[in-house]
Amino acid sequence: MKMKVIVTPKAAVLDPQGAAVREAMQHLGMPEVRSVRIGKYLEIEVDGDGPEMEPRLHQLCRDLLSNPVIEDYDLSKAAGKSA
Amino acid sequence: MKMKVIVTPKAAVLDPQGAAVREAMQHLGMPEVRSVRIGKYLEIEVDGDGPEMEPRLHQLCRDLLSNPVIEDYDLSKAAGKSA
Repeated sequence: MKMKVIVTPKAAVLDPQGAAVREAMQHLGMPEVRSVRIGKYLEIEVDGDGPEMEPRLHQLCRDLLSNPVIEDYDLSKAAGKSA
Repeated sequence: MKMKVIVTPKAAVLDPQGAAVREAMQHLGMPEVRSVRIGKYLEIEVDGDGPEMEPRLHQLCRDLLSNPVIEDYDLSKAAGKSA
């Protein structure tokens, strides 16, 4: 089973990395850019496909892969597999 | 228009950050994890919606947001907007 996790900074949290990229894009010929937010993308391949896998993955997302104080995460099955 | 960009290390490239996360997940009660690959996720909001926007965004993805030697990128419209 292949899962993907997207970790993004919460909307209320300053994202200086995103702001830096926005500035760079504006200077490199795209002044239309209004905002950029940068997060992490993880592709996780796990053996097996049990229904008990997903709650454990959610737990790990909260404990290890994201900082729930300042980040949100989104766990989903990667495309190309049946749901 | 809201676009998202996912930048991932190419399959042939070593991903030490992903390997470290895999080890950590295995030690934290999920020995079923076979592989983890870590990339970047960007949400870009641009003013306007012209058809000439996308080639310019692709150009910026290659020039600024990814390193084409070791990374692939995937540019797509963010969900919640008509294509």
